[in-house]
Amino acid sequence: MFKDRVADAYKQIQDHICKGLVEVDGKAQFEEELWEREGGGGGRTRVMQHGNVIEKGGVNFSAVYGKLPESVKRSFKVENDEFFATGVSIVMHPENPFVPIIHMNIRYFEMDEQTRWFGGGIDLTPHYVIPTDARFFHYYLKQACDQFKAEFYPKFKALADDYFFIRHRNETRGIGGIFYDRLKPENTGLSYEEILDFSLAVGNTFLPVYTELIDRNRHTDYTESHKEWQYLRRSRYAEFNLVYDSGTKFGLETNGRIESILMSLPPTAKWHYNAQALPNSPEEETSNLLKKGIDWL
Amino acid sequence: MFKDRVADAYKQIQDHICKGLVEVDGKAQFEEELWEREGGGGGRTRVMQHGNVIEKGGVNFSAVYGKLPESVKRSFKVENDEFFATGVSIVMHPENPFVPIIHMNIRYFEMDEQTRWFGGGIDLTPHYVIPTDARFFHYYLKQACDQFKAEFYPKFKALADDYFFIRHRNETRGIGGIFYDRLKPENTGLSYEEILDFSLAVGNTFLPVYTELIDRNRHTDYTESHKEWQYLRRSRYAEFNLVYDSGTKFGLETNGRIESILMSLPPTAKWHYNAQALPNSPEEETSNLLKKGIDWL
Repeated sequence: MFKDRVADAYKQIQDHICKGLVEVDGKAQFEEELWEREGGGGGRTRVMQHGNVIEKGGVNFSAVYGKLPESVKRSFKVENDEFFATGVSIVMHPENPFVPIIHMNIRYFEMDEQTRWFGGGIDLTPHYVIPTDARFFHYYLKQACDQFKAEFYPKFKALADDYFFIRHRNETRGIGGIFYDRLKPENTGLSYEEILDFSLAVGNTFLPVYTELIDRNRHTDYTESHKEWQYLRRSRYAEFNLVYDSGTKFGLETNGRIESILMSLPPTAKWHYNAQALPNSPEEETSNLLKKGIDWL
Repeated sequence: MFKDRVADAYKQIQDHICKGLVEVDGKAQFEEELWEREGGGGGRTRVMQHGNVIEKGGVNFSAVYGKLPESVKRSFKVENDEFFATGVSIVMHPENPFVPIIHMNIRYFEMDEQTRWFGGGIDLTPHYVIPTDARFFHYYLKQACDQFKAEFYPKFKALADDYFFIRHRNETRGIGGIFYDRLKPENTGLSYEEILDFSLAVGNTFLPVYTELIDRNRHTDYTESHKEWQYLRRSRYAEFNLVYDSGTKFGLETNGRIESILMSLPPTAKWHYNAQALPNSPEEETSNLLKKGIDWL
């Protein structure tokens, strides 16, 4: 069955990424927890903590099925209420403030032959925006997208700007990336097989991209004041995930496995009252780049 | 006008509480920011940080008016869309993990002669639940309630258990307190004047109660591991406020003053993966007391 092939391919991506992250980190190993969902299916939550590079990060795989909650069913306008969903979700919080936070998610959802689609995305949240790194990141994503459709990158880049946005702060979570949802043959001109290939291509950008960004910045010296800024940026990350992120909300509302859902939250975050970057500081430079519509290429 | 008298009385409560907190802290002063709201009204945000006792805390007063956002108007089913709202909101995050976090809110909302009511509450979030302190807290609240209506304390205590609940963790935020909303003559048998007096009585419990809890615990020795537990409990506090708190949600959705709304968030919070209290530890004892329906009296 198609859905089983998707889940198997996603599992392999999880394995491949975990292996690569252990190598690049050089110290931390993943702790794995296998969990089963009451209504059907389960997952493999893998978390690494206190590494050379990664302070806390998770690479989660799940494949779940069962009956859709009534509220979700209503919004999909379907008769059938059996669903299947599989995906890989990653968030990495590095120790060094010059290494960016990264997030990646690929997922497939199916209710019946007509009601099934792919979604996902990858976005970068540098504590300090380094323009050459930002260009590298977006360029790599564009290359991955361009193999499939010329319109993918500009379209999904704009969607990422809109999605990874902290409305109450009027700032983006970071420098964006790509975000897409409900991809099917009707709206892409690709077959399901081809969209699966695109989804895997997005998954496969993660390791080379993040390894490169780690290698570029892992040895940059930092001070206590750089750490403080990192804690502030992380508190914004927590605000986004708890207030806006659809995956987190869906998980909390449907009694998902809490520790797997909230592995995305930062190891340490700080909320100072009225915290503001000093004029003309690197922190202010970063703040000024947290907006939609920047063309990094 | 009644509403101006309410706002004035609330302002005085803010002044009185700030004065008392500065005295008990002995080091920190409040920073004040006066702000104006675009649609009408404004407030006085007062925050203290890095005190002897208080690591971060805010005592906010606001009195705002104008046109209700369409979404809120619909839920109230009123023709008129002019509103007035005033309130005092407090959250205190102490340095010492044996001093509890406290929250208090009193508020009055008015649209027209028929559509107006009082709301509020006070609840305690000890990092370590100390049963004698919990009893003292609830006893004091019961005394304040009993002067008005015998049914208030049991009713509002049960409402607090339901409201200050972190559903996705299946645990209460702390040991509860009292919570009430939409109090009017029809549902209390009291006049608006009497409900105002009740609201002020709730406001006036704050200082004696918290001063007593500070004095009892401010000199208790603590270790790094007690602090770590405090950071964990604070991360749960942040989860509650960002995911469930109505005041926070309303503020974020209606473009309130962000730093005033989010002053309730903890100075430092930590999310460790799968953090759990050790068997038979004081931390586990506290975890076991984070549930609804405990009769502290």
